[in-house]
Amino acid sequence: MTLANGMAAKKKVLALAKKFKKKLKKIKVFLCDVDGILTDGRLAWAGEEAGFNRFFNALDGLGFRILQQNGIKVGVISGGQSAGLKMRAQMLKMDYYFVGNEDKRGPFLKILSDGYTPEEILFMGDDFIDLPILKRAGFAATVPEASWEIQAAVDYVTERSMGRGCVREVIDILRMAQGWQLKFPDFED
Amino acid sequence: MTLANGMAAKKKVLALAKKFKKKLKKIKVFLCDVDGILTDGRLAWAGEEAGFNRFFNALDGLGFRILQQNGIKVGVISGGQSAGLKMRAQMLKMDYYFVGNEDKRGPFLKILSDGYTPEEILFMGDDFIDLPILKRAGFAATVPEASWEIQAAVDYVTERSMGRGCVREVIDILRMAQGWQLKFPDFED
Amino acid sequence: MTLANGMAAKKKVLALAKKFKKKLKKIKVFLCDVDGILTDGRLAWAGEEAGFNRFFNALDGLGFRILQQNGIKVGVISGGQSAGLKMRAQMLKMDYYFVGNEDKRGPFLKILSDGYTPEEILFMGDDFIDLPILKRAGFAATVPEASWEIQAAVDYVTERSMGRGCVREVIDILRMAQGWQLKFPDFED
Amino acid sequence: MTLANGMAAKKKVLALAKKFKKKLKKIKVFLCDVDGILTDGRLAWAGEEAGFNRFFNALDGLGFRILQQNGIKVGVISGGQSAGLKMRAQMLKMDYYFVGNEDKRGPFLKILSDGYTPEEILFMGDDFIDLPILKRAGFAATVPEASWEIQAAVDYVTERSMGRGCVREVIDILRMAQGWQLKFPDFED
Repeated sequence: MTLANGMAAKKKVLALAKKFKKKLKKIKVFLCDVDGILTDGRLAWAGEEAGFNRFFNALDGLGFRILQQNGIKVGVISGGQSAGLKMRAQMLKMDYYFVGNEDKRGPFLKILSDGYTPEEILFMGDDFIDLPILKRAGFAATVPEASWEIQAAVDYVTERSMGRGCVREVIDILRMAQGWQLKFPDFED
Repeated sequence: MTLANGMAAKKKVLALAKKFKKKLKKIKVFLCDVDGILTDGRLAWAGEEAGFNRFFNALDGLGFRILQQNGIKVGVISGGQSAGLKMRAQMLKMDYYFVGNEDKRGPFLKILSDGYTPEEILFMGDDFIDLPILKRAGFAATVPEASWEIQAAVDYVTERSMGRGCVREVIDILRMAQGWQLKFPDFED
Repeated sequence: MTLANGMAAKKKVLALAKKFKKKLKKIKVFLCDVDGILTDGRLAWAGEEAGFNRFFNALDGLGFRILQQNGIKVGVISGGQSAGLKMRAQMLKMDYYFVGNEDKRGPFLKILSDGYTPEEILFMGDDFIDLPILKRAGFAATVPEASWEIQAAVDYVTERSMGRGCVREVIDILRMAQGWQLKFPDFED
Repeated sequence: MTLANGMAAKKKVLALAKKFKKKLKKIKVFLCDVDGILTDGRLAWAGEEAGFNRFFNALDGLGFRILQQNGIKVGVISGGQSAGLKMRAQMLKMDYYFVGNEDKRGPFLKILSDGYTPEEILFMGDDFIDLPILKRAGFAATVPEASWEIQAAVDYVTERSMGRGCVREVIDILRMAQGWQLKFPDFED
């Protein structure tokens, strides 16, 4: 058993969950920028029809499922768009899907108009077009590659790089802070 | 000669083989999750026909050959599926190929019904949908990116990241534990 | 608040901006090589029509926007070419687009003939075909993977690897040196 | 000037060139395995016609040019094959192109029959199917991800990972050992 590894990893995430508990307890909506957050920032041309292709991460995908199982709304606000992004959003059954507009204030206001307060929204973004939402959201996180102004404006800078499980890292802290029971198949069911 | 490098690498793998020898000696089936284990976790949309494309690793491919040369059955149990995954499974001549179902208990029971005991099965997985099999398998391994509950449930956490040779790392330990002679072409043949 | 992270990142970039201020204050044109600078150096065959595909980085893309907002001309000089490179250049509205010629002296002279002095040109390149421009440009930068002759010829070697935000790293130093005010949407607008 | 960086990089490569000088002075043919050497080991399905796609590195490409400028024959011996590999070989104007056969002894003997001795051949490979050639070649190198038997059999283990410039690293050592003058366009021409 690598109980030692597991316990070290648990200790770290529990410490972060405790540190941010007050803010994280209020979260009801989990929003992400796409390029550099849900993806590794890479863009590869895939032809006229598909546009620029992006590289998502399976760890984040299961993280979104955990969020939804526990009543958290999930969504993306992206300046870019492409066939792959649309398919990924459908695959993850996202509640909010705002793409193709670099001014992200409108989507944020739209979500507020659905009855959420800024304190109930967690947002992850990595660049200046994310800054207005990062400053307003109840909890804001970014990646270590972000410019210093972004890092200075958020609650948490992830250990993991862009698209390498950075979103899942925040989801793991959030679920410990909110104390969720996970619901996946088990032989004891 | 980089005998020094080779000897350092050998020493490390031999120590792990010795540590896990009792469990590893019994292994007859080598099973893997796909996303984040046989791949680097990345998903890239490749069109309606192909689905989300995945990025496999050649080191693991030759590792599967070594397993098969020594009578170990190999296979995948994946929640996802795509044309690329199917082709990779065919290329590696997998004995077990279960895809498109996130409840992995059924495939595991199917393998048991083929006459294998849990102690004879090695499983590598990186997320909660892998947990029931990781807890039952005779030897369980995961990657350093896995959530703490996964790390706490397995026998071994690989040094290498998702899809960067993590499967081959475990195969190299297994073959030292079982004491196989490798059969590749040589000028001395 | 991760003010600590932000302040550490700020301190580092300010120190570099101060160190190179005299040279960077003169820059009016920001030129890049493509493979290994704007991309991670990877090349993947995408068929006869598309050629070899390349992997760009979203962080650099927003960096180019910052340059253009502040009156800096932007462009690429690449020995290679492909459909993806052309689309990326269009997407980023590049002022200079020289591709498919490994002798990069002609494009550099063409830019000078537009009325710029070498001192006003910043160039990033990673290999020997970039060397003549790196030696002439007012400010030259490369990546840590470059051969020693390239590293010895430039003003700055980035911390970040090829295509992993190395261009944005230089843009962040340049904007601090020139003291720009960024213009992105804000709720205070 | 990052003369410091350049000088540190130069010192390291010169030390290696000196260490291996006797063997490297004899090299006339530079041969590489493909997966995990000229590529990062990743395989992505690209459809029936293209096969599994691979990810090459631009740094190695220019390295091959340097070899050819100095009369060194270049080539690949790969167990796999695909449209992308063929195109890359054509792009790099390879002298030897052996693909689709995991028994690499035949191609090696073919090269010997062209009049080269084993001492004149440098080979880079990362796995057991490369081992017979690695043991016979005048100079053998591998990557840090290789199994310990491979690492123990070669002259040099690169610092750089699979497909991340590992081939260029060896070419840079070779060119210092053989004392080549590089021939790229310069303003002083």
